[in-house]
Amino acid sequence: MIMAEANGAKKAIVLIIDGLGDLPTPKTPLQAARKPNLDRLAKEGITGLLSTVGRGVVPGSDTSHLRIFGYEPKIWYPGRGPLEALGLGMELREGDVAFRANFATLKAGMVADRRAGRIDTGTASRLAKLVSMRIEDVDAIFVNSVEHRGALVLRGPGLSPFVTETDPHAKAALPACMPTDESPEAGKTARIVGRFTEEVRKRLSGAPENRAREAKKLPPANVVLLRGAGVFRQVPPFGEMFGLRAACVAGGALYRGVAKFIGMDIFLVPGATGDKNTDLAAKGKAALKALETHDLVFLHVKACDSFGHDGDFKGKTNMIERIDKELVPIIMKSGACIVVTGDHSTPCCRKEHSGHEVPMLLWGPQERADSVKSFDEMSCMDGGLGHITGKHVMPIVLNTLGKAKKFGS
Amino acid sequence: MIMAEANGAKKAIVLIIDGLGDLPTPKTPLQAARKPNLDRLAKEGITGLLSTVGRGVVPGSDTSHLRIFGYEPKIWYPGRGPLEALGLGMELREGDVAFRANFATLKAGMVADRRAGRIDTGTASRLAKLVSMRIEDVDAIFVNSVEHRGALVLRGPGLSPFVTETDPHAKAALPACMPTDESPEAGKTARIVGRFTEEVRKRLSGAPENRAREAKKLPPANVVLLRGAGVFRQVPPFGEMFGLRAACVAGGALYRGVAKFIGMDIFLVPGATGDKNTDLAAKGKAALKALETHDLVFLHVKACDSFGHDGDFKGKTNMIERIDKELVPIIMKSGACIVVTGDHSTPCCRKEHSGHEVPMLLWGPQERADSVKSFDEMSCMDGGLGHITGKHVMPIVLNTLGKAKKFGS
Repeated sequence: MIMAEANGAKKAIVLIIDGLGDLPTPKTPLQAARKPNLDRLAKEGITGLLSTVGRGVVPGSDTSHLRIFGYEPKIWYPGRGPLEALGLGMELREGDVAFRANFATLKAGMVADRRAGRIDTGTASRLAKLVSMRIEDVDAIFVNSVEHRGALVLRGPGLSPFVTETDPHAKAALPACMPTDESPEAGKTARIVGRFTEEVRKRLSGAPENRAREAKKLPPANVVLLRGAGVFRQVPPFGEMFGLRAACVAGGALYRGVAKFIGMDIFLVPGATGDKNTDLAAKGKAALKALETHDLVFLHVKACDSFGHDGDFKGKTNMIERIDKELVPIIMKSGACIVVTGDHSTPCCRKEHSGHEVPMLLWGPQERADSVKSFDEMSCMDGGLGHITGKHVMPIVLNTLGKAKKFGS
Repeated sequence: MIMAEANGAKKAIVLIIDGLGDLPTPKTPLQAARKPNLDRLAKEGITGLLSTVGRGVVPGSDTSHLRIFGYEPKIWYPGRGPLEALGLGMELREGDVAFRANFATLKAGMVADRRAGRIDTGTASRLAKLVSMRIEDVDAIFVNSVEHRGALVLRGPGLSPFVTETDPHAKAALPACMPTDESPEAGKTARIVGRFTEEVRKRLSGAPENRAREAKKLPPANVVLLRGAGVFRQVPPFGEMFGLRAACVAGGALYRGVAKFIGMDIFLVPGATGDKNTDLAAKGKAALKALETHDLVFLHVKACDSFGHDGDFKGKTNMIERIDKELVPIIMKSGACIVVTGDHSTPCCRKEHSGHEVPMLLWGPQERADSVKSFDEMSCMDGGLGHITGKHVMPIVLNTLGKAKKFGS
């Protein structure tokens, strides 16, 4: 048996492997991967199948993580913008309207490249200084992250998230931002976005960085596209809801954003990139470090989802093997309760999220074990947890930790 | 493996075998039947147990079908009357109050035969011409179907379904129709039903068809009994709710009525009678035809329920074998995703509906398979779908088809 505290672990690591679930072709990546450590946790622990948002429902990564950590997304999901902005380290205030933003290339009124040729982060950072501005009584605050990516926050009175996107999601004309309801707030926000977009075009078109890119036949980053509008509102903090001090170790901004949104502390890890070359051992060590001061660590690995989106079965399988070899042994040393699951399936044969259940395992000292010996979609059909949904995860974790409050007497 | 479209079927056939579930005496009909095709679908697909309306709840055929196709019956169930009327091909308008109706025999104020000796359809059709009439400002529109069966629609201002039935469901005095709330609408409707019943008695008693029946010692059809009052209201169409163009192949009027109520297109099949001699091959071929123009085909077989009501274990078992031999091979050729389940159990030992779960199988190319190898109540206890309720069926089907909308990003 894995080493653990004598009277049951009082802390938990929740490892979420993004897009983990898959479909058999004829095996799933989890079935194909050699993963002795995950299998050992499955064998010594209890397993099941998890629908994060609901049976058959295809979740986004944001809604599914909210649901796993106890927040019904139909009530609490603020849209992607605020989560991205929080994930980039921006501080949001009640009523801020935030967008996911892309540097892009505009050519004769058409969006010729939605990612401005995946512009290098250094150049994007210099251009980013031109993008924040004040429009009427609104501050438009832009922060870039990796390559073309960034977030825009609009801060001021009377704003609304009910506006259309300026990202056409295709090579197409740059759409105007329109209000989607008849409120004065939506009208104002659409007007501010329109003026922002026009001013950004002017400023970026004249920037020396873009003239240099054009000289090198690189697509200039001469516009910023917006999508995923959402308004920031404080939610009941995770720590108060569950009585657990929680930390997040994640490479991807969106996941750090979800964690920050619900009040977890963020542990930044050099080398945790959220991509396929992420430093898994560094993340594992950061999780152990976080566990010294926190009760629950949300540990996120993104790349399996990316491989699924690429339809790369071999890549996804290898990534699972890397996680098993480089990350899982570290968290097994923690003595903490361990949950391993995914936020949704991203089947390689579909190249997109699906609503198929994801396997889940729960390992804790003195916890029940089932007869499942392998951690995969088909084996976990027989698991002792049965079929659960995201809302069940935190109550089960709290109960495992012996920290659930009694209802009744 | 069964032939299927390369990238996963984009269409679905949902085969509902009415009253399919049973209790072991010592086997269930599904366990006793030889059904290699259903077993093959179970083996290659994923199975589970379905409570259509809720665990332990005894559903009607109408409520269970509504729930399977995505309509919470507590909200949307209009009562049996409107569904029967729609199933007989009547066009209903918002606010119409409809009843299931029976020709019956009245003798000295007593209902002597609730079915008028199961009067032949030809005679009933001639008598039916006497039964439609105008009362005050209300049109009473009667349509007969098979034998003694029919439906009555009341159309006019200020009607209500909150009235008692005139069908005593036993050899008993003909009950007067009474309002069940204090609204003027219920009062008016009860009065209209009373006048309708009285006028129908008068007209039918004098009909030559009834004098001929009496001369042959057959019970005259001299009254029409009403039950299952309901008001027709438009519901959100199935096609809009799920983005699937849907068709129905069913012999029984009630099932066609449910399908029409939710906006499915009805494919009428000569030889599809809804009874024990129904032409299963014709129904299978009609389903394939419907699949050419539609995304989802609801294919219904009634007789297993009828055998259950009769307590006829052998008949139910044989009917399952006929379905397996005559119908299932046809739909297996479709390349579509296939769902097979029941709307409820009708155990032969009880001769009535029960709330026991029904087995369900889902077969689709590239879908997960579980370890279940036989399609029956006990084998499907170990199925990979687990225990689901009716509300999960459509999300699971949509996800299988890759047509579920993502929630979040």
